[in-house]
Parts: sequence; structure tokens; C-alpha cells
Amino acid sequence: MKAAIFKEKGTIEVQEVPDPVIQNSHEAIVKVTLSCICGSDLWLYRGLSPQPENSRIGHEFMGVVEAIGDDVKDISVGDLVIAPFVVSDNTCQECRAGETRFCRHGRFWGTGGYDAGQGEKVRVPLADGTLVVVPDGKNLDEHMLRALLPLTDVLSTGHHAAIDGHVTKGSTVAVIGDGAVGLCTVAASKRLGAERIFLISTHADRAALGTKFGATDIIAVRGEEASKKIKEATNDLGVDSALECVGTADAWKLAFGAVRIGGNIGFVGVPHDVADISVSKLFGNNVGIKGSGASARHHIPELMADVLNGTLDVSEIFTKTVPLADIAKGYKDMDERKEIKVIVKP
Amino acid sequence: MKAAIFKEKGTIEVQEVPDPVIQNSHEAIVKVTLSCICGSDLWLYRGLSPQPENSRIGHEFMGVVEAIGDDVKDISVGDLVIAPFVVSDNTCQECRAGETRFCRHGRFWGTGGYDAGQGEKVRVPLADGTLVVVPDGKNLDEHMLRALLPLTDVLSTGHHAAIDGHVTKGSTVAVIGDGAVGLCTVAASKRLGAERIFLISTHADRAALGTKFGATDIIAVRGEEASKKIKEATNDLGVDSALECVGTADAWKLAFGAVRIGGNIGFVGVPHDVADISVSKLFGNNVGIKGSGASARHHIPELMADVLNGTLDVSEIFTKTVPLADIAKGYKDMDERKEIKVIVKP
Repeated sequence: MKAAIFKEKGTIEVQEVPDPVIQNSHEAIVKVTLSCICGSDLWLYRGLSPQPENSRIGHEFMGVVEAIGDDVKDISVGDLVIAPFVVSDNTCQECRAGETRFCRHGRFWGTGGYDAGQGEKVRVPLADGTLVVVPDGKNLDEHMLRALLPLTDVLSTGHHAAIDGHVTKGSTVAVIGDGAVGLCTVAASKRLGAERIFLISTHADRAALGTKFGATDIIAVRGEEASKKIKEATNDLGVDSALECVGTADAWKLAFGAVRIGGNIGFVGVPHDVADISVSKLFGNNVGIKGSGASARHHIPELMADVLNGTLDVSEIFTKTVPLADIAKGYKDMDERKEIKVIVKP
Repeated sequence: MKAAIFKEKGTIEVQEVPDPVIQNSHEAIVKVTLSCICGSDLWLYRGLSPQPENSRIGHEFMGVVEAIGDDVKDISVGDLVIAPFVVSDNTCQECRAGETRFCRHGRFWGTGGYDAGQGEKVRVPLADGTLVVVPDGKNLDEHMLRALLPLTDVLSTGHHAAIDGHVTKGSTVAVIGDGAVGLCTVAASKRLGAERIFLISTHADRAALGTKFGATDIIAVRGEEASKKIKEATNDLGVDSALECVGTADAWKLAFGAVRIGGNIGFVGVPHDVADISVSKLFGNNVGIKGSGASARHHIPELMADVLNGTLDVSEIFTKTVPLADIAKGYKDMDERKEIKVIVKP
């Protein structure tokens, strides 16, 4: 079969690799029908995150189950399944607490000899614990499939940002980051009942999509000017929840500038150059901070129900589709911010 | 009238001071019936918090209204009132958001020419916004008055720790600190529905009181040994909420050692030697942190209802009562940890 390979910084290639076969009774083989490129893939593409040369890549995919091991009980051959971006057993203490991202038997795709997601097929460890079956998956149209695909990562991550930022009915929210995760965070905040949603975006196309997803106010400036505008628009108070979806020092500065005393910062941007935080500073404004990679496996069933009933649709974050053979072009376009998010179709 | 004066590190004296008179239309004069000594008073007594020499002290008191200014509408002469440990207008943006601790017209007792709480009378600024009237206050017995007094600070602070630590029905909680605030945090957590409450205490008398207030497990060791015991007792998971009521690096270390992945640290100990916190570390375990001084004015009405109906009674934190003339002895006994908390009766 064919799969995408990270050759080295800046170079993605499609190569012939061995077809996966089941090696343990808890595994499944999934034929990938849709996968996509993540903002975090770009970090390694740019050489800013560690990634071995000549390694398999990709962690956002869905597909059809082709084979299952003897101990797989909840998944059948032929099922349409969504794969969260982390493997989990869904039975350990952390998983039972809803923290599947931190499963003590979890792993990332493409590690330990397992396949990654940008390829034709994937050998899935802990299949029952990891994969989510889409009910009646055979009868869904192409649009619905594209609406389900963000559950693998970015939509679950947006939901996680909102949950960790304690967004609730009536909340005032500022979303920092207008990439796919930021836009999904807007949609997730609206779904949770946020009344007013500021999106910081200086890109008209992304701002338009944010507005479609529920943003009520577009802040088309950056930095201190942005937090100043948010304060002005909130009677000099600030927002209940600032949702940080970038991972840079500037984004954190904006989050602290936008949030009100007693509010919360939910963060899902992988921290890159963010300074350590003074506990005394937090004590001086009662601002809560919480964040991590999302426990997508935990969040997907709840979110999927709303995707399937048509009330949650962020499929427009996908601005381009490429065949697997052209995946390098997809990376390049996302790296240059020509596209928000690219589907890779094997 | 007489009032307590902080002479210098280690010395508290009672001196004759001018009787207060109303100077602004929003003020009230309160004749203090009960006041008490706070753990944070000990910081200044020990010279560890800045405090001017020869200054008025005390911020926990209740009493009877003796006079009101022309613009005071919600409080009448003769009312029994509870004074939160911070003055607030209860009308500004922060107050309306429930953050009365951070009122933009707020101040601490004993600043700007205003009286402090350990004395015979207090001139109260922003009386309507600050004071809470106790309904039917004239007909309460001595025990109920002692049960109401902790609302001024420690009980509101314990509630705040539990709220910021997101304690809810069914939560597993670890309370770090067995002083008056820690013990009140146990009671507040139980009130919010916590199912299991660990109290770290190596003092049998304080542990016994903690058990009475709702602690289900006493951890009678310190440091890593304590967090190890909590992990063992929670199936190697950790607690949902670690409530830090000390403010030291050791207490924070224990909080991080006790909390589960995805749990929350609520903190009310004024941070003294606590290191800055790495955002990447938080990202690696999804632990939320939130804390500050309590917005007592906001919390008191809700808590007072339960004190008055008899379901919330932490009056046993008061292990000694001294007349105002003997307040120095009260400070000394608390400083030497001979007493948990001392009432000062003018």
C-alpha cells in the first residue's frame, strides 16, 4: 500500500510500504477513506517539533474496518469508524475519568511500529478503546463524511478548549487563533451556549467562516490593540473565557489581556515560547488556566450526535482536497497559509 | 474608643483612638460585637508581610450598626451586620461578575484613614455594598453568632477554594492545610457534595475537627509520602480537586502530587515561596489552577442561609476567646499554634 513519509524538514513523500496485518488480538485494520493534515503536522514539517526522518505521519483519519482481531468486540468489519488523534484503551483510570488523551496504555499514531494516519490503511491498536463507530455509516453522503472528519482532532480540540475555559450558557468568549482549531473553538463555544464570541482574525476569509460558525464580533487587529478593543466592547470588564488556540507568548499575552478578573483561560495551542506563569499574578486576578491536548475519544460520541443531526457542521474548514499522491502540495499550501485545512483522500 | 495597634513585628497593643464619626454619606458606623484573628494577620505579626508600624489591624468582624450616612439605603441602625474582609461597592463590573474581592472601588480595612476590625467600633466605607445584614439578628444566641463570624473570611475563603477547585457533587477532594481555612474548606467541600475528602493533618485535634466537618480520610504524613498515600487510596488516580490552603512551595508540590490528570487545583493560600508554573507542564496533565482571595461579599448570602438553618457550622474553629484588652495573648497563642483561631470580644 501507499503511505505518506516525512523524509526530512520540508519534504513529504508518498512511498510503497507493507500492507498492515493484524498482529495482536485487540487490533483492527482500517482502510482509510478520508484523512487530513493538522496544524501540528506543520510544526514537524517546519522542523520545529521533533520527528524522526523517514517516519510515517498523520493522526487524523476515518475509514472502514477491514479486519479485526479475536478480542475486538465493539467493532465489526464494514463499520465506518472515526479515529481520535491518540490511541486509548478507554478502560484505565484516566480514560474512565474522561482523560483518554492521557490513557496509560495510549500512544500516538506512527509510533512503536504502528501505522500513521496519512496512508491507505492503518493497523489500529486497542481498537475497541480507540475507534468510534459511526452509526449507519454506509448511508452517509460525502458532505456528512467531511463534517465528521474534524471530530478526529480539531473539533474535539475546539470543544476541549471551551470546556477547559469553562464556557457555559451565556458566556462571553474570546477565541485567539483563526486556524482550523480556533474556528472549531468558535463553533464549540456557540454549541455550549456562549452568548457573545469574539474572534481575533486579520484574515477576511477566516473571519467570515468564524462568523458563520457563531462569532459575534471580529477583532481585526492584533496584540494589545485587540485586548483593548475587547475590553471596550465589554464595558471595560473583559471576557469570561479566553480560549488560546495558538501556543505562542503573544497569544497568551492576548488571552490575559482579554479575560476578566475571575475568568478562565482554556488553552489547546501546544506551548512553544510561553513563559512560566506567576502564581502570585494569578492570585491577583483569580484567573483560572487549564489546557492540554483534547481527549477526543471521550468527546466524540457527544459531538458526533450533533454532527449527525446537522446542528454542528464545521466542514468548511476544509478548503482543499488532494489525493494521497499530491499530499506534499497539501502540506505546502497549509504551510504557506493558502489553505485553512486540507483533506487527503487515499 | 479602644483599638488594637500593630506596633512593630511581634507586638500588638491596645490603645485609645478617636471615636469614628461618619464623614461621607455612604458610610456607616458599626459597634463591633465579635472580631477574630486571621492566619494572614500572623504573617504581618511575624514581619513576613508588609505592614506599617503603629497601624490599625484586623479585618474579620461583625457588629451592630450604630449610625448611617444619608445615602445608605439597605442597612438600618440596629441591624446586625457581617463585614467581609474587603470593602466593595457591589455595583461595579467586577462586583456584578461576582468578584467583589476585586471591586474597583474596594479597599482593605485599616487603609486610607479608615478603621480596621480589631477595635470597639469601625467606620465602614461603601456600607451598602460591603455589609451583609443578618436577618432577625437581634434574636440569635451566642452559638449562632460564633457560627456566623467565620463568614467574614475563613468560611468564605474555604468555599472559594472549593469553587475555584471545581468541587461538585461526587468529587474526590484533598485539602492541604489544617488551619482554620483548611478546616473550613473541608466543610465547604462537603456542602458542595464532595463524596470523599482527604485532609492532610499531623495534628490530632485539627484532624478530629476536620473529620467532624466532613473529612473522610486523614492523611497524617507530609510531602511525597502524603501524595503517595492519596494516590494509593484513589486506585492510583489522584483526586479531582486539590485545595491548597497554605501558600508555600511544599503545599503546592503536594497539590500537584495529589491531583489527578484532568483535575483542578483551587488555591487560597497567599503565595509566598511558590515557583512560577510551566504552561507545558500543565499542558502535559490537563490540571487546572485557579485561586485568589475570596469574594466573601458575594459568597456570604448563600453561605449564611445554611449557617442560619444549622446545616453549616464551623464555630469550633474558635478554640479561645479573649477580651480586646488581651488581644496580644491571642496573637501569641495563634502564632505558637496553641490555638486554631481566636475570637476577640471588645
